[in-house]
Amino acid sequence: MIPIPIPEFKVMNSKKLLKQDKLASVANLLDGKLVKSSDIVAVLEKVIRPNETVAIEGDNQKQAVDLAKALVQVDPAKVNGLRMVMSCVQMPEHLDIFEKGIAKELNCCYIGGQSARLPQMIDAGTVKLGAIHTYLEMFSRMFTDLIPNVCLCVAEAADRNGNLYTGPNTEETPTIIEATACKDGIVIVQVNEIMDELPRIDIQGEWVDIVMKSDEPCYIDPLMTRDPAKITNLHILQAMMIIKGVYARHHIDRMNHGIGYVSAALELLLPTYGEELGLKGKICKNWVANPIPAMIPAIECGWAESCVAFGSEVGMQEYVKARSDIFFTGVDGLLRSNRCYAQMAGLYGCDMFTGSTLQMDYYGNSSTVTKSRITGYGGAPNMGSNPNGRRHTSEAWCSMVTDHTDVMAHGRKLVTQIVRTQTLNKKTGEMRDCIVPQLDAVETAKKAGLPEPLVMIHGDDVTHLVTEVGLAYLYMANNKEERKELIAAVAGNSALGQTMSDKRRAELRNEGKIMFPEDLGIDPATATRDRLSAQTLEDIVEWSHGLYTIPDKFLEK
Amino acid sequence: MIPIPIPEFKVMNSKKLLKQDKLASVANLLDGKLVKSSDIVAVLEKVIRPNETVAIEGDNQKQAVDLAKALVQVDPAKVNGLRMVMSCVQMPEHLDIFEKGIAKELNCCYIGGQSARLPQMIDAGTVKLGAIHTYLEMFSRMFTDLIPNVCLCVAEAADRNGNLYTGPNTEETPTIIEATACKDGIVIVQVNEIMDELPRIDIQGEWVDIVMKSDEPCYIDPLMTRDPAKITNLHILQAMMIIKGVYARHHIDRMNHGIGYVSAALELLLPTYGEELGLKGKICKNWVANPIPAMIPAIECGWAESCVAFGSEVGMQEYVKARSDIFFTGVDGLLRSNRCYAQMAGLYGCDMFTGSTLQMDYYGNSSTVTKSRITGYGGAPNMGSNPNGRRHTSEAWCSMVTDHTDVMAHGRKLVTQIVRTQTLNKKTGEMRDCIVPQLDAVETAKKAGLPEPLVMIHGDDVTHLVTEVGLAYLYMANNKEERKELIAAVAGNSALGQTMSDKRRAELRNEGKIMFPEDLGIDPATATRDRLSAQTLEDIVEWSHGLYTIPDKFLEK
Repeated sequence: MIPIPIPEFKVMNSKKLLKQDKLASVANLLDGKLVKSSDIVAVLEKVIRPNETVAIEGDNQKQAVDLAKALVQVDPAKVNGLRMVMSCVQMPEHLDIFEKGIAKELNCCYIGGQSARLPQMIDAGTVKLGAIHTYLEMFSRMFTDLIPNVCLCVAEAADRNGNLYTGPNTEETPTIIEATACKDGIVIVQVNEIMDELPRIDIQGEWVDIVMKSDEPCYIDPLMTRDPAKITNLHILQAMMIIKGVYARHHIDRMNHGIGYVSAALELLLPTYGEELGLKGKICKNWVANPIPAMIPAIECGWAESCVAFGSEVGMQEYVKARSDIFFTGVDGLLRSNRCYAQMAGLYGCDMFTGSTLQMDYYGNSSTVTKSRITGYGGAPNMGSNPNGRRHTSEAWCSMVTDHTDVMAHGRKLVTQIVRTQTLNKKTGEMRDCIVPQLDAVETAKKAGLPEPLVMIHGDDVTHLVTEVGLAYLYMANNKEERKELIAAVAGNSALGQTMSDKRRAELRNEGKIMFPEDLGIDPATATRDRLSAQTLEDIVEWSHGLYTIPDKFLEK
Repeated sequence: MIPIPIPEFKVMNSKKLLKQDKLASVANLLDGKLVKSSDIVAVLEKVIRPNETVAIEGDNQKQAVDLAKALVQVDPAKVNGLRMVMSCVQMPEHLDIFEKGIAKELNCCYIGGQSARLPQMIDAGTVKLGAIHTYLEMFSRMFTDLIPNVCLCVAEAADRNGNLYTGPNTEETPTIIEATACKDGIVIVQVNEIMDELPRIDIQGEWVDIVMKSDEPCYIDPLMTRDPAKITNLHILQAMMIIKGVYARHHIDRMNHGIGYVSAALELLLPTYGEELGLKGKICKNWVANPIPAMIPAIECGWAESCVAFGSEVGMQEYVKARSDIFFTGVDGLLRSNRCYAQMAGLYGCDMFTGSTLQMDYYGNSSTVTKSRITGYGGAPNMGSNPNGRRHTSEAWCSMVTDHTDVMAHGRKLVTQIVRTQTLNKKTGEMRDCIVPQLDAVETAKKAGLPEPLVMIHGDDVTHLVTEVGLAYLYMANNKEERKELIAAVAGNSALGQTMSDKRRAELRNEGKIMFPEDLGIDPATATRDRLSAQTLEDIVEWSHGLYTIPDKFLEK
């Protein structure tokens, strides 16, 4: 009955055998699972084979710094052609490996410090760009077609059995390690400390093959902190428009904010302006966000019910520990973060994403990519997209339905984008449009040989647009051309703004599709810094009852 | 400078303190972390407070059977008004808790055995339906607004420290436990066995509070197995159309299949028909799927490179162990599954989802909900939706672009739906349309008081439709009305099919928007069972070199 010959039995555990071979070949360099930092280059040369897929952990917070530096030192005659999978391209070493031929293909999510250098290296053919992803998408590929043969990760401490303690910055370590360990890859982790007993276990030791105590403790940048002192009246006006025109109107209780001064202003306005509007208990209850200092006054005033975090933030450790009702914590009382779960919650568990962009086109597409810089996206495409698979409803979700005659109509996620209509070009002293006919990302992608433009958030996913001029309810647009009109109506003095007639603007305003501050009952003259519940980081320390510590970086100014 | 008074310092660790209190109150019933099954009801009465959120683990595979049965026995005067979060409503006890007033609100993903009873209980007001989700969405809410106060989970074994061994069915246990444990909820796990040393650790013990050895080992149903003996020539014809008209045409290498006879046929045709077409190495390389017996011939012939699984399948244990090059496994060599990561990979890491539906409307919306049954969706809405946040391209993805003049055009995920145009109504002996003007799910949702119809997959997410008549390339439709025409053109003798004129059908065929088997070079007369690489489960055992074991359920027939 079997129509073709069945192939002879063959072993299909070659990856397991290869792993055993690799580990046996470095046994003389290991003490149990421990390796000295002076031996790590030799170990990498033996456990990484040419053309393998290698993950380096690192994002906008913690970085496997010492392992990244070690990888650059391997002999390219031994280790070459690697396919890299890495959330962030931040350190020079992350690109140096391409210059030396150690690595060939780059798959990443975000380009930090190296955003100007990367396009040149793509141009020169030194880097073959696999793809730039949103985090959850790259994690997904670690389980399908980008499964790491070796991963280079970072944790706070390990015991001799390889159990890992990540401290508050658990982030993406469990995800990378599960994808690698369970497909017989080699898991190498740098830690600040080897301990006999860990304060808690974040990842079980049997998934970890090699542990290295790094020479320097892993540096974590307080990247999410915004100093309230730098919040301007314009940020405050925009935040007031969002609170009243979006949060209150659509009853947003589960949400994620991007990091920026408008978001910080919004958080600091909840205990003052939000309270004035009687919104406590109605909006901003369930947060998907890192614990950031600007949240403290709202938490102390009882606004937040929960907060699930991608990672931690420097200085917030003791505060989080004293507020475990709000934050996810481990048995040691410190934050347990999880980038994968928080991104997932940001996609499916939130009613709204609020973010900023540097450039937007006439149809609402936006990107942070410019002609000379490829920056990538991080989590924005994921959290700033409509989850077509979502099936639970909420007041906010349902408020996006505009055609109530359609029985098949369904809600959608709210995506609010903040953009300046123009910014000052510091070189020429002239104003430059931020709302442009075509995103720079279109040309940049073409030059990099990519089949699609490098868009951060698609225009048809954006439901609300906030400029310094007003608020456009893009979800109300009947079609793409009307969406362009709504954008134009709040595009100020930009070229697009100038195409809008006063008459048409008045019509759109009458239809409630755009609103200016006065339509929302906001007098711009009252959008001032004295509304902020904290005007300095020192104020936030006071709000935290001394539990928040200002990071050194902000003291040095 | 601080505009409002800062509230006095207060402790915000009440959940941690409550957890300590709860555990102290049952200390006399525990031996370390262990509880006897005879004491579990008393324990539940003390650790669950009225109106709390409780998760019961259970899906279409493993079920926390004993804990679900224990929950029904608590005194409703002590434990009541619970908000339930549970992937599956399968056991009578899952609804009995509502009849007894122990539970009030139901949040779930899938309704198995109780799909006829649930609508009646919603009608009667006994169950307040929170929402029916897709899995990833419900997991997301476990980290935002449905954080469990208590979870009742299931594993294969535990040690006395609470470390858990799940065996091949890890599934959603780590996700539920992380959400509960890290927000100071109580984690209770039933296990088949208490062991001194576990074969591997799937979840670290410090997240687990209470372990109960269940009286009966947890039963796992071989729900994913399709007996090749039941595959018909029609299934084979549809599978051939999909292989040639979709997989080969769009170069689908990363994909997920729903479970059904067409999918099983497709898998069993790869080594024969797929080989004939020269497709090996070009399609079906990276799988997001449970290890199912129908995959074995393709794996033995070298089609698959990797497979990440939601859960396991009975009888596949030894086969998986011998094929760890393909499957994710733990240190014991057995499968490591993960429902959350596999669903994530199904969303963002695949180019195509193929699934079946029982009913489809004229615009391609589909649902498995009928007038008398609420079945829920499981993973289909997630995997059968276009991920708007995806940014990496592939040949398949880019092949969905139809307007090549638009610089902002971007690809999309392929979603293939299989539907019969009509089925036999066994009661009346008449043929009944499966393609209908309005889904039953619309009325069912209205009756249940839900604001949106219970749609499994939205019509605008479906790119390909396969009926027994032909294949419609829905992604080529210029608008919604043309989508309806394409559906009509392959809708056979159904009412919609009869609205299609021969002339218009011929036009659509000329434009390549629909194809019949002959257009694909397939002679329906050759779509016969002798093409199947295995025609019985016994054949599959032979393919597996004796490693696959036929589950008892299939031997009893």
